[in-house]
Amino acid sequence: MIVSKVPSPSRVVRAIWKPLTVLFVWDVIVTITYYVLPFSAPELPVTLFGTVLGLFLGFRSNSAYQRWWEGRGLWGLMINASRNIARAARNFMPDPEATELKRQIVYRQIAYVNALRCQLRRLPQDEEVLRLLPKHEKDLALQRVNVANGILDGTGRRIDEARRNGWIDTIQQAQMEAVLVDIANSQGGMERLKNTPLPFQYRFLPMLFTHLFCVLLPIGLVETLQFATPLGSTIAGLMFLAVLTIGDDLVDPFANDIHDLPLNAMCRTIEIDLLQAIGEKAPEALGPDKHGILW
Amino acid sequence: MIVSKVPSPSRVVRAIWKPLTVLFVWDVIVTITYYVLPFSAPELPVTLFGTVLGLFLGFRSNSAYQRWWEGRGLWGLMINASRNIARAARNFMPDPEATELKRQIVYRQIAYVNALRCQLRRLPQDEEVLRLLPKHEKDLALQRVNVANGILDGTGRRIDEARRNGWIDTIQQAQMEAVLVDIANSQGGMERLKNTPLPFQYRFLPMLFTHLFCVLLPIGLVETLQFATPLGSTIAGLMFLAVLTIGDDLVDPFANDIHDLPLNAMCRTIEIDLLQAIGEKAPEALGPDKHGILW
Amino acid sequence: MIVSKVPSPSRVVRAIWKPLTVLFVWDVIVTITYYVLPFSAPELPVTLFGTVLGLFLGFRSNSAYQRWWEGRGLWGLMINASRNIARAARNFMPDPEATELKRQIVYRQIAYVNALRCQLRRLPQDEEVLRLLPKHEKDLALQRVNVANGILDGTGRRIDEARRNGWIDTIQQAQMEAVLVDIANSQGGMERLKNTPLPFQYRFLPMLFTHLFCVLLPIGLVETLQFATPLGSTIAGLMFLAVLTIGDDLVDPFANDIHDLPLNAMCRTIEIDLLQAIGEKAPEALGPDKHGILW
Amino acid sequence: MIVSKVPSPSRVVRAIWKPLTVLFVWDVIVTITYYVLPFSAPELPVTLFGTVLGLFLGFRSNSAYQRWWEGRGLWGLMINASRNIARAARNFMPDPEATELKRQIVYRQIAYVNALRCQLRRLPQDEEVLRLLPKHEKDLALQRVNVANGILDGTGRRIDEARRNGWIDTIQQAQMEAVLVDIANSQGGMERLKNTPLPFQYRFLPMLFTHLFCVLLPIGLVETLQFATPLGSTIAGLMFLAVLTIGDDLVDPFANDIHDLPLNAMCRTIEIDLLQAIGEKAPEALGPDKHGILW
Amino acid sequence: MIVSKVPSPSRVVRAIWKPLTVLFVWDVIVTITYYVLPFSAPELPVTLFGTVLGLFLGFRSNSAYQRWWEGRGLWGLMINASRNIARAARNFMPDPEATELKRQIVYRQIAYVNALRCQLRRLPQDEEVLRLLPKHEKDLALQRVNVANGILDGTGRRIDEARRNGWIDTIQQAQMEAVLVDIANSQGGMERLKNTPLPFQYRFLPMLFTHLFCVLLPIGLVETLQFATPLGSTIAGLMFLAVLTIGDDLVDPFANDIHDLPLNAMCRTIEIDLLQAIGEKAPEALGPDKHGILW
Repeated sequence: MIVSKVPSPSRVVRAIWKPLTVLFVWDVIVTITYYVLPFSAPELPVTLFGTVLGLFLGFRSNSAYQRWWEGRGLWGLMINASRNIARAARNFMPDPEATELKRQIVYRQIAYVNALRCQLRRLPQDEEVLRLLPKHEKDLALQRVNVANGILDGTGRRIDEARRNGWIDTIQQAQMEAVLVDIANSQGGMERLKNTPLPFQYRFLPMLFTHLFCVLLPIGLVETLQFATPLGSTIAGLMFLAVLTIGDDLVDPFANDIHDLPLNAMCRTIEIDLLQAIGEKAPEALGPDKHGILW
Repeated sequence: MIVSKVPSPSRVVRAIWKPLTVLFVWDVIVTITYYVLPFSAPELPVTLFGTVLGLFLGFRSNSAYQRWWEGRGLWGLMINASRNIARAARNFMPDPEATELKRQIVYRQIAYVNALRCQLRRLPQDEEVLRLLPKHEKDLALQRVNVANGILDGTGRRIDEARRNGWIDTIQQAQMEAVLVDIANSQGGMERLKNTPLPFQYRFLPMLFTHLFCVLLPIGLVETLQFATPLGSTIAGLMFLAVLTIGDDLVDPFANDIHDLPLNAMCRTIEIDLLQAIGEKAPEALGPDKHGILW
Repeated sequence: MIVSKVPSPSRVVRAIWKPLTVLFVWDVIVTITYYVLPFSAPELPVTLFGTVLGLFLGFRSNSAYQRWWEGRGLWGLMINASRNIARAARNFMPDPEATELKRQIVYRQIAYVNALRCQLRRLPQDEEVLRLLPKHEKDLALQRVNVANGILDGTGRRIDEARRNGWIDTIQQAQMEAVLVDIANSQGGMERLKNTPLPFQYRFLPMLFTHLFCVLLPIGLVETLQFATPLGSTIAGLMFLAVLTIGDDLVDPFANDIHDLPLNAMCRTIEIDLLQAIGEKAPEALGPDKHGILW
Repeated sequence: MIVSKVPSPSRVVRAIWKPLTVLFVWDVIVTITYYVLPFSAPELPVTLFGTVLGLFLGFRSNSAYQRWWEGRGLWGLMINASRNIARAARNFMPDPEATELKRQIVYRQIAYVNALRCQLRRLPQDEEVLRLLPKHEKDLALQRVNVANGILDGTGRRIDEARRNGWIDTIQQAQMEAVLVDIANSQGGMERLKNTPLPFQYRFLPMLFTHLFCVLLPIGLVETLQFATPLGSTIAGLMFLAVLTIGDDLVDPFANDIHDLPLNAMCRTIEIDLLQAIGEKAPEALGPDKHGILW
Repeated sequence: MIVSKVPSPSRVVRAIWKPLTVLFVWDVIVTITYYVLPFSAPELPVTLFGTVLGLFLGFRSNSAYQRWWEGRGLWGLMINASRNIARAARNFMPDPEATELKRQIVYRQIAYVNALRCQLRRLPQDEEVLRLLPKHEKDLALQRVNVANGILDGTGRRIDEARRNGWIDTIQQAQMEAVLVDIANSQGGMERLKNTPLPFQYRFLPMLFTHLFCVLLPIGLVETLQFATPLGSTIAGLMFLAVLTIGDDLVDPFANDIHDLPLNAMCRTIEIDLLQAIGEKAPEALGPDKHGILW
């Protein structure tokens, strides 16, 4: 996620030089053709086309934004639920009998969110996940297709262990199980976003129509704009392309891209909160890197 | 659900050659008539018509998309609830007394989601459903009008059996019953989407108006576009038809069509998660077929 | 609710012949006047008016559709809750002591949804409601202003009876009471939709502005469209009237009209599900009548 | 809330004669100036201005409508919760020991909703509130800044009294406390709507821009509409003013105005439901007054 | 939050004199250039640009408003939950044994909301937070990265203390823990809004496009508006800038700005409600300052 206020110029240049050049060259070709070989092309269809396309792209960016925001909301719920499970574990269970179990539950939760982060970003399970799990747990969880799910199942067993030891009763267990349900629901929601792209029509048609529009635009404008066509047409074309790109950037909020949600930073936030909740030393929060990107 | 990034050309050709031909022929007829028998047709009404129709189609695609996304969300909830019921069963009930019952609950849930899939797609209950149920259960469930519902009722009875055996207490039963309520609510939401089409007006009028618009379009444009009419008018017409088609494709997310939700794949995901949760061997996940379609 | 794919021609004719005639006659009058007594009327204000009106009508249809869909969602919740109360009753309570009580709870729920249906449609309580209630219950419930509410209160007493008999404990009672809360909330939501029309401004102004627009339309178009005015203006006018009508049709989803929700069919669905859940013989599902309408 | 289908003419005249006169006089002045002292004023900026203003006003009416509908939804939840607390009290607590306490809980809830109504409408606590509370309760509650909140706190103590008497156990108390949480949440939501107007920008700018637009409109139209300007411009101006007014009317749904929610009628509905639930005689429902307004 | 109905003129002047001057000077320069060195610049691209930009800005203001309203909703939930925790504490726990503990829970909740307020506004923890906590608590909480979270954890421990003392049972504890979950969820939602700005594209591109539009506007209008260009173009430009600014003002509802949510006033509301709930003397409510701003 980009947190800097202004874009780095080099990133802007890298992002737009290609479409800019293509658009400009095409607009110049059309303008020259018009002066060499005058043709008559009314602007009305371009206006009509542009309006409908604007509505279409607007709807698509809107959907993409909502997916991005829903993804953020689901990670927010995950942060809340992580705090809730830690608070419940710490307060419900007696010391010193259950101290070690509490630590395990908290460690497991930190491992869980990191495992989920790796799964969502399609990365292999990294050191953040493995370091907090005991060896045999690690092996067991890694055998599951859905590693995060395996870790969560194990947390449920730890809680039941506390009940069998008489440290909590079934009501307190039910309360903690309800938090596990919240966690499982957040995870499910994230997997839904990850595994379900926008419908094919919303991926392919806007791209097709926008490019078609950029091709037709100078033809429709040249009679009116004359030699100013390359300028006017390129600016308008870039604007439409920018709106198209916004949709692509936001639609998959769990990819590993500069526009995506800062899962690393959020996992660290959870780690700090949870370790401090059981009185352990916590690492530093993650800040944006030197390019102003929070990962 | 189409997961490939670009459309297969053959699918595109099959999808558009008919409307393309009809539109083009009509546009050519209008253009020829105009040159043979000049008439004066101002473009204003076409613009006004096009704008209002654009708003109308936009609203309709939007509603259709929301139905599709709601359908996906409901299956997401079903996946979550399936994991929750399995985790609760495994953790709450004691081993080895309840081991067989846990297996039954998990098997029933896999049978349940497959039964629901068949019902939603209006297919007969297939082998996936039947193989995991004991013989007499199968017969009992198949007598119900709503087979999935019958299987769920039976799961509730299994849970009560565990309570009567003293394996869980009523609080744990209540916790598990709450998950059954989540499952029943998801099912009910899916049946609502399946059984309630868009209101008649949103099915019939956009189709009528779009076709009418395609008929009027070349008449309104021919004076301006002259001999370029067939090209301009056909492109614009196809665009409106495309938006109309999107609505039709997404409105029933549980049909058995290439644009619909990949229920097979999601049922398989549930099967894998649940079997691994009780330590059994799970089948492979389903991937897209060779045409890039996930069913 | 209309379930047929194409509209019956007779229904279409009946629905549009009146506005069609009025619009057409007025458009012809304006056109003739123009040829007899030429006047100059620019089209711009009509375009501006049309755009703003389009936005206004669009918003209103949208709100009406959302009310309709919310109504459907609330009945969906009612179906789910009915299944949940039946499943809980059947599974929590012991046989054979509580068999008769279970039957009563299921019968009451069927009576309840039918009573609610009659209340929402402003019909007198019909035979469907009364046949399943014992005589003295019937009299008691019918004395209440809100009959459905009275039946629900009685169901709550039956559940408490089961608790006092020691058939269920207070946890199971709480679980069932939570389902009654769901039922009461659905009912309350339906009554809210029924008793709260759209704000006056959204009922009156769109009607006023649309009719004003239909009057002004031919005056604004005649200079451009010439003798084609009656055709063009009538089509455009009908389109705006159609959008206006959609709003009126959907805004009260619980009326007893062809566009409204099929409450009869949904009550029957509940009846079938619930009777089969306790192993009794269920009636047939209701299908659309010969005009393709599901009531 | 206006429930009559057509507006009373006198109300319409009273509502629009002032803006109508002002608009018309200004439009006539502009037209006369134009004929006396011709000036050239192209219509384009007016169209552009009108479109953007239309979007702006559209968004604002939409927000206002959503606030109004949310307010209605919150009162709907209050009605449901009132029924739920009464049903729970009646069913959970034993007769005849708890009969008096049940009556108190029901009376308190009726007093509570009336107190809330007075608070939201910024009226002093009226007789409806006070008559149902015992003398010392009245004094205690009236000392609180938030009277309704004080009454609710007292209801919670009554429920705890029942628990201390052994009439209900803590599970049943928790179930009733959950309903109190619903009630407190509804109240909080209503206070949020009441105390948070639309952001300043959405209150001031639309008013400013709409009036500016009404001033500019005849100047932009006079060249095209000529002597028809006063008519065309006044109609268009009134339409924009109407949309502006809708926003103002709906934005505060708890004021004491003809467009606001019928809190009196809804409090009476609750009173009838609750008194009948404990078998007491209930007053009549409130209907609209002779002007077709439901208060 | 501005609560006054009309803006203070000095604030308006301060807000707009800079853009007003810049726009006007530029518009005059363009107009003079046009008269000195006539050029031909058609208005079409400006219209097309303006429409697309209008949609874009509209979407952005909409999103910003929704964030603002969500932020208000989350504080509303916090107010409700604060009342719920106080009511539960007061009613569930016995007097006089638990009187001191109840007071602590209420004081902690007041400290908690004030700590959260400081965190969200990026202010150091102020006197409001510290005065209500005992010395050692203060030190403990201030060591946490997330101070509010630390206070909440401590409240959970107080509640468990009540359970260990036998003052409440685990069911009542679970009920109170559920309120703590509500509180943690509200806090998490607020932190989500605070830490997640709008995506970069929605922050940077609207600003860029709006400024570009203001530059191009007089060039496109000058041929039509002639010497009225500076007036027309400045008004239109200001309007677009106003809409741009709305987005910036609302997008971060927890900043310490005149447009942001009145967290001080809401914390005070909670303090009054909670102190009165345990019968202590409460301070006065906070009103708007002399500029009509509620902080």
